Amino acid sequence: MPIEVLDNETTDQRLNQLTQALGNGMFVHVRNMLQDMAASDIAFILESSPPRTRQVLWQLIDQEHTGEILDELGEELKDSLIKQMSPERVAKAAESMDTDDLAYILRSLPDSIFNQVLQSMSKQDRVRVEQALSYPDDTAGSLMNTDTVTLRPDVNIDVILRYLRIRGELPDATDMLYVVDKKDCVLGGVRIADLLTCDPNASVREIMVSDLEAIPVGMSDSEVAQLFERHDWVSAPVIDADNKLLGRITIDDVVDVIREDAEHSMMGMAGMDDDTDTFGPVLKSTFRRSLWLTVNLFAALLAASVSNMFEGTLEQFATIAILMTIVPSMGGVAGNQTLALVIRGIALGQIGQSNSRWLIGKELAIGFLNGLLWSVLVFGAVWAWKGDIALGALIGGAMLINMTVAGLAGASIPLMLKKMNIDPALAGGMVLTTVTDVIGLFAFLGLATIFLMH
Amino acid sequence: MPIEVLDNETTDQRLNQLTQALGNGMFVHVRNMLQDMAASDIAFILESSPPRTRQVLWQLIDQEHTGEILDELGEELKDSLIKQMSPERVAKAAESMDTDDLAYILRSLPDSIFNQVLQSMSKQDRVRVEQALSYPDDTAGSLMNTDTVTLRPDVNIDVILRYLRIRGELPDATDMLYVVDKKDCVLGGVRIADLLTCDPNASVREIMVSDLEAIPVGMSDSEVAQLFERHDWVSAPVIDADNKLLGRITIDDVVDVIREDAEHSMMGMAGMDDDTDTFGPVLKSTFRRSLWLTVNLFAALLAASVSNMFEGTLEQFATIAILMTIVPSMGGVAGNQTLALVIRGIALGQIGQSNSRWLIGKELAIGFLNGLLWSVLVFGAVWAWKGDIALGALIGGAMLINMTVAGLAGASIPLMLKKMNIDPALAGGMVLTTVTDVIGLFAFLGLATIFLMH
Repeated sequence: MPIEVLDNETTDQRLNQLTQALGNGMFVHVRNMLQDMAASDIAFILESSPPRTRQVLWQLIDQEHTGEILDELGEELKDSLIKQMSPERVAKAAESMDTDDLAYILRSLPDSIFNQVLQSMSKQDRVRVEQALSYPDDTAGSLMNTDTVTLRPDVNIDVILRYLRIRGELPDATDMLYVVDKKDCVLGGVRIADLLTCDPNASVREIMVSDLEAIPVGMSDSEVAQLFERHDWVSAPVIDADNKLLGRITIDDVVDVIREDAEHSMMGMAGMDDDTDTFGPVLKSTFRRSLWLTVNLFAALLAASVSNMFEGTLEQFATIAILMTIVPSMGGVAGNQTLALVIRGIALGQIGQSNSRWLIGKELAIGFLNGLLWSVLVFGAVWAWKGDIALGALIGGAMLINMTVAGLAGASIPLMLKKMNIDPALAGGMVLTTVTDVIGLFAFLGLATIFLMH
Repeated sequence: MPIEVLDNETTDQRLNQLTQALGNGMFVHVRNMLQDMAASDIAFILESSPPRTRQVLWQLIDQEHTGEILDELGEELKDSLIKQMSPERVAKAAESMDTDDLAYILRSLPDSIFNQVLQSMSKQDRVRVEQALSYPDDTAGSLMNTDTVTLRPDVNIDVILRYLRIRGELPDATDMLYVVDKKDCVLGGVRIADLLTCDPNASVREIMVSDLEAIPVGMSDSEVAQLFERHDWVSAPVIDADNKLLGRITIDDVVDVIREDAEHSMMGMAGMDDDTDTFGPVLKSTFRRSLWLTVNLFAALLAASVSNMFEGTLEQFATIAILMTIVPSMGGVAGNQTLALVIRGIALGQIGQSNSRWLIGKELAIGFLNGLLWSVLVFGAVWAWKGDIALGALIGGAMLINMTVAGLAGASIPLMLKKMNIDPALAGGMVLTTVTDVIGLFAFLGLATIFLMH
């Protein structure tokens, strides 16, 4: 059967088969299995394997495919594998890699190895890479490939068709050829689908798309991703300040940016780096997670020092101590809902000067309404539980204050952090929880001290 | 200048201009601005506007473009706009929409309007839509378009080229034409780039890609997205159980799935629905967030009832009350780090039978190591603050217990939820926090009761 039907379980099954074969020491069998697999599938299996399995698999992989496989791996795993490779092997792997991926890998190497790798490359590769390295990471330039096919405007289509037949294979994900003038400035683009269907006697100028949008080389990769998403592009030309064509960006690289950006928000909110390796080694992982826990320890000690201010109240009323975690907890959850919404909005580029004030007002209103609702419910719950109407009223009041603050803080903290050029996805959650914990404890313990202590 | 260079600030500027023009009542000017914009840009601006602005903009939009714009909108906003439209207008909008998007919209309509819309459609559209509606939401079938161009294997390329020229324009994002036999079974595919560069005297069979991977119509959309991502596809054929070609899926629809899946994890962990509208109305938003807060109230009351069990200890030692929030807080953060990692791994399809036990073991080890580290630090901090070495030892011991449990729970809870077919992104965070709160309070207050109360 020529067509491979993709079964839901295929990858997990393959992984099971490989793990079993490795466990039984059937290395030759594993090597044969790996030879039949696509680079992207091998990369996926490496990503999904514990460190020891990875080591063995990596030894068994055909040296020729190293480059392609590295291309497809996540950053943390890629870095750790490259560190074990000899400079010669890296240089060899480099031959079969895209320029943008190669530049990425070189950037992460120590200087001494970096130079050795460059030395071992052919001159052509070296020039290509040095150019790619000149663009900052996370910009359109770093996503760009230079494999563009360009046309002149005044040539007839039948000439183009003959030229393409002589030229041979087109680069991957080519949906458009770019039309440039003598100075390499972009005039427009010709869809390759149109080359197949148009009148061969027409000129390039007649069939070209002239309102083509081009990407400035310094645009951030997240913005590039938003444009691809919004306009359903497969590829787009990249230009410099003089409108000169530098290269093109293709959807496959953009998909990685979209995935990374979305993961960045999610992992960041939990205090994790988005290129954290799921199956990375224990000690390294422990170390990488410590920073966030350190910050949280200070936040928790800050909250405890708020409670400490009300030691007298806590000494007299154990019930207050029992109930005091409820108000910070509800405020934290409500604030986090708002925070997630605003961080996503920022990541999608939806939130700007024109609407941020409206958004803060809306979240403040939701916080207040939620506060009203939950203050009544928690008043009822505590009254029923502890049989003390004053205590119920106190906790209800504190709840209203904290939920309102949570709405305001959840919306304004990420916007303020963004203005200060601090990543809201990373810092937002911790700052917010500290605010809702401190305000929640202050409100409840403060009200209790005022009304219960005479 | 024929090429539009995309400036970083373009969209926010446009939004500002539109908002100002609306504020000044310059409706004709706004209408003209909207007419010059692409549907995807208008959709973006609608998404980024508060409800009142949206209403006015929606009135000013050219009726002819309604369908295209609806195509590009997020689910919550799309639903609310469609509810206000007359069935005739929906039917008219339907004409310019892709089948998959149209099916989505119809699915969300109330039955009475649904039938009215179907009645107002042309027969051809109706057949097309009824077929699309027969595939369940969130499967390959629901992402599929039926606009495939098929070839027979034994025809020469020059015949194909002539046929395409007569046929005219190819569907968007066509990078491959599918080769089928008489029964419509897929034999392979011909890249349109290859049509341009190959020998015109070759036959389709000679230049076709015969190890083409095809997607079964029932595959989940997340799996489809993973395949596109891994294999850098622009489009892929969809087949039924008999290998018969049903249609194709294109990267633009897959990008939406990738974005939605990634957002689902992030928003879900904060207790929000991933199609929540950032600029949605206040009351609706308040209501939609209540469910999560209700669940959290029960979790917080559960934690309070744990503290309640140790009322005697809390009555005697106010310091215990002051410090009792630290242990649950650290456990919650550590557990959440693990949870985020595992939820992402599940979403990427990296975690299966073969490696989940290893992963749980790894996270348990990290939890224990982190527990050791933080128990020492918090022991020191509390000893220094309160001058009580026994108290420091108590909180250190509780910390070690809770961090270890947090590692175990953070890894095993999402895997268990997944086995029970409960969405780990949505339920995982709440279950985890409840576990770390309860265990943290139990450990600290329990140890304090044993060692301080005689």
